Amino acid sequence: MPGQSRSKWQQIAADLRNQVTDGTLAPGAQLPTESELTSRYSVARATARQALTALVNEGLVVPQPPRGYFVKDRKPLYYRPQTEFRPRPLSPEMDIFLAEHSEAGREPRQTIDVAIVEPSSDVAKRLRLEPGELAVVRRRVRYLDGEPYNTNDSYFPLSLAQGTEIMMPHDIARGANQVLTENGAHQVRALDEIYVRMPTPDEATRLQLGPGTPVSCHICTGLTEDGRPVRVVINILPGDRHVIVFERDRAKEAES
Amino acid sequence: MPGQSRSKWQQIAADLRNQVTDGTLAPGAQLPTESELTSRYSVARATARQALTALVNEGLVVPQPPRGYFVKDRKPLYYRPQTEFRPRPLSPEMDIFLAEHSEAGREPRQTIDVAIVEPSSDVAKRLRLEPGELAVVRRRVRYLDGEPYNTNDSYFPLSLAQGTEIMMPHDIARGANQVLTENGAHQVRALDEIYVRMPTPDEATRLQLGPGTPVSCHICTGLTEDGRPVRVVINILPGDRHVIVFERDRAKEAES
Repeated sequence: MPGQSRSKWQQIAADLRNQVTDGTLAPGAQLPTESELTSRYSVARATARQALTALVNEGLVVPQPPRGYFVKDRKPLYYRPQTEFRPRPLSPEMDIFLAEHSEAGREPRQTIDVAIVEPSSDVAKRLRLEPGELAVVRRRVRYLDGEPYNTNDSYFPLSLAQGTEIMMPHDIARGANQVLTENGAHQVRALDEIYVRMPTPDEATRLQLGPGTPVSCHICTGLTEDGRPVRVVINILPGDRHVIVFERDRAKEAES
Repeated sequence: MPGQSRSKWQQIAADLRNQVTDGTLAPGAQLPTESELTSRYSVARATARQALTALVNEGLVVPQPPRGYFVKDRKPLYYRPQTEFRPRPLSPEMDIFLAEHSEAGREPRQTIDVAIVEPSSDVAKRLRLEPGELAVVRRRVRYLDGEPYNTNDSYFPLSLAQGTEIMMPHDIARGANQVLTENGAHQVRALDEIYVRMPTPDEATRLQLGPGTPVSCHICTGLTEDGRPVRVVINILPGDRHVIVFERDRAKEAES
């Protein structure tokens, strides 16, 4: 912020931030300690700590007491909503992108539980449920190398899911979408909404989120040919662990 | 968090958060004051303040001294990356969605400046620039009703933009994409990446962001038929002012 007066801790934070951003301090690298900053900038220890804490709260830096502070080093996973309708990428650029952010070599695992619930108004509105109408939710937490990566809660109208494999608390190899198709609810289009916000305390606990880690809330509504919503998925994706990607093709999008 | 012990301020914050989330406290409504919480929960004033501050830091509540604390009331704007290739929505659901999040009745304005820069590695990598190769950037800040809503920085290789309208610091009515097409760089596809993080101090200043307001960083790379990147756009979208939306069509996406 040239031309603006900044306090000492803000200057120190800005110097360190620039070094993180331009790669001088690489992911995983240790930052100067409080003592080092104290002598380098001729400031009180509390001032050095204030600068480091600011970077922690921005999500750039992780404290690892008693060793010190380190540049956050977490490889984001790609998250590609288009996968369900478009398994393979269309372009070489997307291929390269996915290879850089793949799960390769990481150990995936998930937990699933199923419940019959009176859904929140967010879900009820999108599924166009009547007041009091119930939904089935399949709640999943996805882990990579033992670390929680995201949550994925899929809601279906109870009237549609009843008696199907959707009610079973195990993985459905052919996918819940295929089960819907077999039950007369074939989805032909989807609407994706992405909201960005701080996590709730529950989400922070469930996903082991550190300070300065916002989440995106991806809500996907799946619709049949006649515009009936048959599935609403709410994904909570920690910002430090994901990049959301889409690819668009001009020729296909221009048709209408 | 049933079963977990919580401190008094966490309980108060949880009660208030639930009332905000379920709509008992509507957007714009005033929260109980520190004094009211002090007597209602039989706690010290500092405890009441700690609960309210937690909600401020989560971005749910805005302090308006000396009146008190209010539920954040800001209508998010839709942001639809598909617009550039698909001006009109395909489905009635998207029509409804856009109508609910429109700019209608709000006063839009933007500032534009143009600069020749040595771009960051993020941009250089995506434009596949040689070391030291320069780019032209058109930097825009978009306002609604006088409030900054987002920033939109579009980068082009200097070799491509030189001598075109892209270099002029005014709005290009037919769009920079059309200028590229006229100059032999017609884009046929785009890759969208969405990162979610806390703002930098510069972004917080430029966009007047309050506490607990993360941003999404949307990076769009536009490519020609032969896979040449000719445009990289970096959009910074405050989480409290935007919802990012996409619509997907199964039949179109399955073709490949």
